[in-house]
This record gives sequence, C-alpha cells and structure tokens, in this order.
Amino acid sequence: MSQNSTVNRRFVLASRPKGAPVAENFRLEETDLPKPADGQLLLRTVYLSLDPYMRGRMSDAPSYAPPVALGDVMVGGAVSRVVESKDAHFKPGDWVVAGSGWQDYAVVDAKLARKLEGDALKHPSLALGVLGMPGFTAYMGLLDIGEPKAGETVVVAAATGPVGSLVGQIAKLKGCKVVGIAGGEEKCRYAVEHFGFDECLDHRAANLGQRLKEACPRGIDVYFENVGGAVFDAVLPLLNTKARVPLCGVVSQYNAQELPKGEDRLTLLTTAILKKRLRIQGFIIFDDYGHRYPEFAKQMSEWFAADKIKFREHIVQGLENAPASLNDVLEGKNFGKLVIQVGKEAE
Amino acid sequence: MSQNSTVNRRFVLASRPKGAPVAENFRLEETDLPKPADGQLLLRTVYLSLDPYMRGRMSDAPSYAPPVALGDVMVGGAVSRVVESKDAHFKPGDWVVAGSGWQDYAVVDAKLARKLEGDALKHPSLALGVLGMPGFTAYMGLLDIGEPKAGETVVVAAATGPVGSLVGQIAKLKGCKVVGIAGGEEKCRYAVEHFGFDECLDHRAANLGQRLKEACPRGIDVYFENVGGAVFDAVLPLLNTKARVPLCGVVSQYNAQELPKGEDRLTLLTTAILKKRLRIQGFIIFDDYGHRYPEFAKQMSEWFAADKIKFREHIVQGLENAPASLNDVLEGKNFGKLVIQVGKEAE
Repeated sequence: MSQNSTVNRRFVLASRPKGAPVAENFRLEETDLPKPADGQLLLRTVYLSLDPYMRGRMSDAPSYAPPVALGDVMVGGAVSRVVESKDAHFKPGDWVVAGSGWQDYAVVDAKLARKLEGDALKHPSLALGVLGMPGFTAYMGLLDIGEPKAGETVVVAAATGPVGSLVGQIAKLKGCKVVGIAGGEEKCRYAVEHFGFDECLDHRAANLGQRLKEACPRGIDVYFENVGGAVFDAVLPLLNTKARVPLCGVVSQYNAQELPKGEDRLTLLTTAILKKRLRIQGFIIFDDYGHRYPEFAKQMSEWFAADKIKFREHIVQGLENAPASLNDVLEGKNFGKLVIQVGKEAE
Repeated sequence: MSQNSTVNRRFVLASRPKGAPVAENFRLEETDLPKPADGQLLLRTVYLSLDPYMRGRMSDAPSYAPPVALGDVMVGGAVSRVVESKDAHFKPGDWVVAGSGWQDYAVVDAKLARKLEGDALKHPSLALGVLGMPGFTAYMGLLDIGEPKAGETVVVAAATGPVGSLVGQIAKLKGCKVVGIAGGEEKCRYAVEHFGFDECLDHRAANLGQRLKEACPRGIDVYFENVGGAVFDAVLPLLNTKARVPLCGVVSQYNAQELPKGEDRLTLLTTAILKKRLRIQGFIIFDDYGHRYPEFAKQMSEWFAADKIKFREHIVQGLENAPASLNDVLEGKNFGKLVIQVGKEAE
C-alpha cells in the first residue's frame, strides 16, 4: 500500500536492537489521520530523512537525547506539505520541514515547523541534506570547531555523504587541501571529480594508514570525525600539533555491543591529546548551534545559488523501505544523502 | 660535595629509562665553570624545579619537545643568581629564572632569562611554583580552556601539588565548587583546610568512582586533567554535557611501557565526547600561552599580595638528590611543589 488520504502508515519501535537493527525491531501500523489542535499543523510526509543518529535513539543507553519509547513512532526529520493548518502562518499546500517521524501524516506544533520558501522550493528534499541538518552540521563543525586556515590539510570520512561532502567543499572554499575517505573506488572517484576533493582514499583497500600518510605529507590539521573506528586509528598518528577534531558522530560504533578486546588505547588517545595539544570537541548541531542557523542558511544559500556547492541524493521510494535503508546508512551502502520518498510532491 | 665556586656538578642523561627512571639513567659529572659570551649570563643555581614533564624528555618517543640527548644535561627550570653578565640588563647578584638544567652553573642567553624583581624577591623559589610555570599552567588551563562558571563543579587531581592546588584555589575565587583528589588522608585534609577545597578524596582508598559521584551530586563541569589513569576513569562517567577537560599532563602514564590489556576503551572515550559534547584540549603552557604570561603575572601577583593564594613547597637539599626526587614526583610522594635547593641564597 502506498500513501493515501485516509490512512496513516507509521513505523513504531517494537523492540530495541542488539547490534544492527533487524526487521523485528520495527512494526508497521495503520491508524486514522491525527487531528491538529489550535496552533498545530497536520502534515503529509513527502520526503523522510534517514540519518545515523537514529540508531542511537533506538537504544536506551544514556545519550544526548532521550530514546524513542517502545511503541512510539520512530523519530526523523521530514519535508512535508501542510494538509490542515490551525496556525495563521501556514496554509494548506505549504512546504515545511519538521520532525514528523517515520509516518505518512504527523501533527506538529506550528512553531516547530520551518516553512520552505523562495529558492528552497526548487528542490524541497535538499532541506534534509545540504540545506538542512547535515549541511548545518558540516558548516558549524568545520568552521567553528575545526577553524580551517588556508593551506591546511582537512580530512573527512563518509566523503560522499551529506556531511562529509559538504565539509570537503567548504574546506576547499576556505583554501584548504582536502583528503576524503570513502567506501569503494566509485565513491572516491566521485568525491574528487564531483565534489572537488584533492584526493579520496578507499577505506576498504589495504594499508589505509600508509596511503593516508602519503596523501597528507604535511600531516592533518583538521579531522572532521563522523565515523570513528579504523579511520580514526589511521588519522590519529598523522594529526599535527594543534590539530582540531570536531566530532559529530562515530557511525562505525553505533551497532557495537561491546568494546573490542586487546590493548586499552584510552591512554594512547589522552597522551596524544597532550603531546600534540589536540582539541577534540563533540557537538550536537541544533543543541549547540541552533542560534546560528540563520547565519548558516544565508551563507549556504549564497554558495548554493552561486553553484559553489554540489550535492548528491540517494532517494529510495516507499516508506516500507525505511528500516532496511537505515541499515544501509549505518553500513555506508548509500551513495549520497539517503532520503525516503514517502509520498508524491503534488498536493 | 656541595656547591662551590670552581666546579660545576651536573647530571647528564646516561641512558633512557624503561619504566620508572633508575640511578643508572643519570650520570653525575664535574666540569669547569662554563664561560658566557656576549649577550649571555653565567648563572649559579639556587633552586632547581623538578616537574613531571621531565620524564617525557628522558624518552625519545615523539613528543611536543625534543628529548634530552644522551650525554646532555638534564633540562629543568631554576632560580639562580647572576655570577657574570655579558648583557647590559643584568648584573652580578641579580636573581633570575631560566632553564639552567640540573647543574650548579649554567650559561644562558640573557634574553631567555627573566629577572626577579619587587615582591618576587621575598620568596624566590615561588618563581618555580605558584608564581611560575606550574601556576601559569593552572591559570591558563583552568580559565582559558576550562572556562569555569560560578556554581559549577571543578575537579582536579594532585590537589596539593603546585598545579592542582592552584587550579582549586582559582576555581574557588571564581565561585565554583571544588573537589580535589590526592594520595592519602593527610594531603586530602590539607587540600580542604589549607587550600580551601570543598572536598578532597583519597585516590588510594576504595571505590573512588562512587565517592566522587557522591561528592559531585550535580556532576562535573570542568575536569582539569594532570594525572590520567584511574582518576580519569572515575571522572569520565560523571562529566556533564558540555564539560571541559583541559589536559596538561597524564603523570600516571609517564612510566608506562605498554598499554594495559583488556578492552579497548578508545571508542568509549570518543563516544562520550560525542554524547556529552565534551571539549578535551591538550596544552603546553609556554608554547600555547607564552604571549599571555604578563596577564598571568599581574593577576597572580595581585591575588598573592592580597593573601588569596596559598602554596606549599617541598624543598629537598642537595643536587645529588634530584634523581630520586624526580621519582617521588612521578609517584606522588612529594607533598607540595618539589624544589631542589642546589646552593645557598646568599651571594
């Protein structure tokens, strides 16, 4: 069944995953359409964003945000059209971005919805990528924590993803040398040819550490951390004195159920922080930088209008494919910003 | 033999330590007095500072400063008197602070020596402690990286040492709750009674993690890291969202020859940095903050003159005791800033 005007399909969290999420962790329910109260909107989801952070919300381990409760709709940002408005600032047919979750219809408070206007209407799904949360993450993490200077070397993984691709492009705009890391030759070629990275290394091939060293003969000044694991291991020895490491995610660890056995390298990291005088700083984009969203939106819109920013989307049709697609995101099988098209664009 | 006017006793690095330094790593030599060239000073050491960083210089592992070469004099800051001056700004008898190293006499470039004047002459050895490098380390690390706000909880280990004791006192001046950690009941009592800490916990007693949790019911906002190891392990789970961790040393690790076996907790740390949005930043005081020394000197002198800052020194007589005393510093056996009195104060 596809989206229609009388039934709300929704994915709720049925159980908490151990390791990678499986089909049984989700339950597809069908309900009546919810009704908006005063100050609320009824939204029809057109595009649903799938992002690595969602794995964290499926777990009840302590984190920066409360977990999704069992039986609750999976969280997620979406681009939607207003079906019914009980707020004077919105009318039926408006395009908005809001936290609708994994479902066809959502009721949200109007003050938590952002209307898409002007150029943003040309390509509404970009509000979930380069012009939205992932773009904002790349922009603030790189510029505010990473503080790249012209001539410095910036490294970022998931180089064809929405965050990594933008980190690299902004770093190039700032005059840096940019080395990406991605999974597979095709993505690496794309990062160089389409996104303008100076180099891009396949983390699936052997000797990542040695190849990264050769690609960064002057060391690494900024490592934008979004994956962790083997990439971080390769980066750490190459970080220069006073290097900055903005840290927005450790995707490689999200499905981990226990710590790896072997040497305890915690002190290896703290010793490196001391000897190299590193700055490693985690951030959660809207919590830490929400007040600077207008600055991002203005700058990114300008760059985008001037054709200085490229993007790539990976659009999957149908809400029913969301659970499997989330696993693709966690495993890096997507190629570009993964978006689920839940319903048609037209009213 | 004690200091005299014709022989220069000096400790050179004879071999590199494996684990804790041993007597054979040092060689006591006797030479003629060196001669200053134009722009240089001949200095007679009165007080020699022993500090944990010296262990790092004995190793040839990559670090922020080059190692002491085999056969070279051990590095170290000292308070000395000018014996002979080939620079117009200094005259015999002046008190100076300089990097004289572990020896009776040193020739240094006048521009690398700092003259002690005014109140600093009342207690010259403090230029190696609260009014010198350790004090500067505490001041900049706490205020510039830690950014403590009134009402926040600040934790620091080595609470009766020159850095830790000052971190706690400055944090109290800024209106924070201060919890120290030290080795043994006597030091803990002293941290509270003499330095004004709110609480101080003995890391040698059982259940440090639980006791620290009870001492910090609102969590930890700033952890000034100078020891690492078990203290860091106890602190990490208690760090609040947006906590800051200035990192100037990991003394507990300096003698480590290999990483501990067991789980690899590197990702535990990076995940905590993400989830709690931590800022962990290493710093080397004069490299990173040398340009702000005047600010420190002015503020600290004011506090000191107003009796707002307490100190404790642990003075050991005789250059010959330097090697064993360095081990005491690394093991926390000193009680207060360890200073070797190498020669008499009087000219």
